[in-house]
Amino acid sequence: MRSRDAYVELVNLVQRAHALATAGDLLGWDEQVNLPPGAAEQRAAQHAAVAEAHHGWASQPRIGELLAALEADDTLGGAERAVIANARRDYDRATKLPADFVQEKARQGSRGYHAWARAKAADDFGGYAPVLEKNLEFARREAAYLGKAEAPYDYMLDKHDPGLNAATIATLFDELKGELVPLVREVTASPVAETARAASRRLRGFPIDAQRQFLREVTTAVGFDYDCGRIDVSLHPFCSGTGADVRMTTRYQENQPLDALFSAIHETGHGLYEQGLPREHLGTARGIAAGMAVHESQSRLWENQIARSRGFWRHFEPRWRQLFGSQAATVDADELYLAVNAVEPTLIRVDADEVTYNLHIILRFELEQRLFSGELRVADLPSAWRAASRELVGLEPANDREGVLQDVHWSDGAFGYFPSYCLGNMIAAQLWHRMQEVRTDLDTDFAKGDFSWVLRWLRENIHAHGRRFGTMELIKRATGEELSPRHLIAYLRERYGELYRCAK
Amino acid sequence: MRSRDAYVELVNLVQRAHALATAGDLLGWDEQVNLPPGAAEQRAAQHAAVAEAHHGWASQPRIGELLAALEADDTLGGAERAVIANARRDYDRATKLPADFVQEKARQGSRGYHAWARAKAADDFGGYAPVLEKNLEFARREAAYLGKAEAPYDYMLDKHDPGLNAATIATLFDELKGELVPLVREVTASPVAETARAASRRLRGFPIDAQRQFLREVTTAVGFDYDCGRIDVSLHPFCSGTGADVRMTTRYQENQPLDALFSAIHETGHGLYEQGLPREHLGTARGIAAGMAVHESQSRLWENQIARSRGFWRHFEPRWRQLFGSQAATVDADELYLAVNAVEPTLIRVDADEVTYNLHIILRFELEQRLFSGELRVADLPSAWRAASRELVGLEPANDREGVLQDVHWSDGAFGYFPSYCLGNMIAAQLWHRMQEVRTDLDTDFAKGDFSWVLRWLRENIHAHGRRFGTMELIKRATGEELSPRHLIAYLRERYGELYRCAK
Repeated sequence: MRSRDAYVELVNLVQRAHALATAGDLLGWDEQVNLPPGAAEQRAAQHAAVAEAHHGWASQPRIGELLAALEADDTLGGAERAVIANARRDYDRATKLPADFVQEKARQGSRGYHAWARAKAADDFGGYAPVLEKNLEFARREAAYLGKAEAPYDYMLDKHDPGLNAATIATLFDELKGELVPLVREVTASPVAETARAASRRLRGFPIDAQRQFLREVTTAVGFDYDCGRIDVSLHPFCSGTGADVRMTTRYQENQPLDALFSAIHETGHGLYEQGLPREHLGTARGIAAGMAVHESQSRLWENQIARSRGFWRHFEPRWRQLFGSQAATVDADELYLAVNAVEPTLIRVDADEVTYNLHIILRFELEQRLFSGELRVADLPSAWRAASRELVGLEPANDREGVLQDVHWSDGAFGYFPSYCLGNMIAAQLWHRMQEVRTDLDTDFAKGDFSWVLRWLRENIHAHGRRFGTMELIKRATGEELSPRHLIAYLRERYGELYRCAK
Repeated sequence: MRSRDAYVELVNLVQRAHALATAGDLLGWDEQVNLPPGAAEQRAAQHAAVAEAHHGWASQPRIGELLAALEADDTLGGAERAVIANARRDYDRATKLPADFVQEKARQGSRGYHAWARAKAADDFGGYAPVLEKNLEFARREAAYLGKAEAPYDYMLDKHDPGLNAATIATLFDELKGELVPLVREVTASPVAETARAASRRLRGFPIDAQRQFLREVTTAVGFDYDCGRIDVSLHPFCSGTGADVRMTTRYQENQPLDALFSAIHETGHGLYEQGLPREHLGTARGIAAGMAVHESQSRLWENQIARSRGFWRHFEPRWRQLFGSQAATVDADELYLAVNAVEPTLIRVDADEVTYNLHIILRFELEQRLFSGELRVADLPSAWRAASRELVGLEPANDREGVLQDVHWSDGAFGYFPSYCLGNMIAAQLWHRMQEVRTDLDTDFAKGDFSWVLRWLRENIHAHGRRFGTMELIKRATGEELSPRHLIAYLRERYGELYRCAK
């Protein structure tokens, strides 16, 4: 068989399986947005059926034959080789894990979730510890099946961000931590912090319909294409779908008008990435996101660097005041901008602002590393969490519910997932720095309501490449330098230092 | 292998395939309700992937082995035998049609749809005739593959309503036609007809939000379980889903407030049937609808016999007036009831009232019969249509757009589908007659807002049986007599004769 024919056949099989996987994704979206309360069991059966059909396609021997033939061919171009390498990665994951292991792990994930929910409600870490032990064992076994027995945590990290490993992340996080901890102390000690929080608290009674209208105008203005996507309501905001069918969600509360808006802008960042992937390559390495960290960089960039900027609010504030007359009148322009950039240390990661959020992630990364190395025993996790929280966030949880039991992730074995959030912040800051070098008057663009240059730059430098390059290479190509935390540090110092009048 | 084991395995495979099919149904629902305009191509790829995966499962040789073993066992009970027979029916359809025929037919269906849309826009039957020729040929070939070469139209009818054939339907329709044509002439000649239409026309400017509220209260009151279903908006109303996840749609227009309501009640009838199927048997003959005609009987019964009754409006009229104060004030109670039961012959089937609708169906059934027998050539269809329309509906279309080109069904080869609509009306009337024999004061129940007896009776006599019995047997069991048009005739004579003061 000619390589060209084999390649075309491989791409066809990969895209067909991807279409089936995205049908499964739609089931997931619908479950969060539309599912009648009584239909959970039926939906589970549909999910299982689509997942099983997808696994059947993704593991068919023909893919293995095509891969073997194509991997032996050194005449193929870089894009093709990336497609083949990613197909190999998926194929190995589909074929090297024994069926009974996959089933057992899925059951354990479901049991783990319920055990976690119970343990959290009862503040009973003892009821959760066996789940964590088991999930760590499953992660190690999974890594071993994929030939990574010697570095199971690296395997978990690489699952979410191809090419990344714990040593690289540790170096980045250590540098970030050294700068961030004192910055948070300075910012929160500033008298301005209380002014910002007080302004936030005055934003009450914002009608949902007007919130929806404003959010729609904002997300459209930054470039979300509603001909190829939509936004709905769910309990937790998320973004699903790809290409021409991107499904975002947000949630509305009258007394937290900035929450729905910034959630939606965050999801818009994810959505713009998915809408910007090359349509003809959807499902192959040329048409899927580079990884979790890069995905998060897109959402954070739009949410933080852009939508919390002065220029952005210079443009949107008049419309905001027009839509929310009496409610908006409780804050002046400076107070609004402070409310948008309020900083408050909290024990709870999901409530954290953009400065302290990174510290919550570093805490989790360090504990995951120590759990996988064996240095930290599960039984000692609560006390290790408390110590780390005190050191990093400056607060110590009074109970495990606000400590080690707060997150759902570990309950179904999603280790190595947290670091992507903080890496995403770093990447966003580095992309932002590079963009500002190329175009120095972005804030003026924003003040005119023009976000097109940023989107075009991201389309060309990030979205167009899909997963062709590893995370680190993609960022180096886009910014001309290795990924580093210094741009995030500089960005936070500049924005929050200025706003909270901290001396450097 | 023991029969019990084989049976359990068969049911498992059937239900698994059904779960995948319903995932495909959700893609269809979502396409009508949610799909962003730019996502049509992506959705088509998802549809194709799910359909292909489903076909792979539905045609797996293991099902054939199990069927062969189980069909040889005469110790199984009636319910089990029905499950096996229906699985055989599905398996034969999945395996006896060659893959290239199925693909060619799908392509022809898509081409046919677009050719029909163009021909209808241009009023050009000549551009549509080759499509019909081709679709007739495909229908004959399909019947031949399934061993029904000698009776292709019977095969098409049986596809929608297991066990029914053209001779049976012709006998029923001939009797109905003989009574219905003069009844329509009487009703439409009545001076009351214009009063009814004038009342309808005065119902204008009904706010959509209040329409939605009223519709929700009505559908809840008749028994739709919103914990196991929902209602949304689409261009054309439909009902999709099954069991604990039934998805209905309607559409709202301020100047046609009865349209959204009766569309929703119609779909509620379908939805109550799907919600009433035995959950543990979903996907097997014990947990799927008996057929199209019985399905339509459920929608028509709720829409017509029940929701156009005096008792129903005695209960709901006060709330209707409360919600639509000034708009509702344009009609008094009698006029509202006339508007609900307005009769007006029209050339267009989908605009027809419940009396004349049946004549539109009989017209199509007779033409389909003659097309399949070869008695009528496609080229002569427009003139045959005009003649039949004059004879049955009493109106002759001035062009083919309002005649033979009005329906989409034939464009993708859906012959034998129309009769189900009229059979559904007959079945509804016969069930209604039987219910009134058992419980004589149903109108009093309705006037109190109590619809529970009807729903319980339908649950026990129709829904609980799924597809265990053929259409004719199911109706005979439920009503104690063979299906006959006389109950429909009597019902229409009684309601419309009284209302329009026609002498019998």
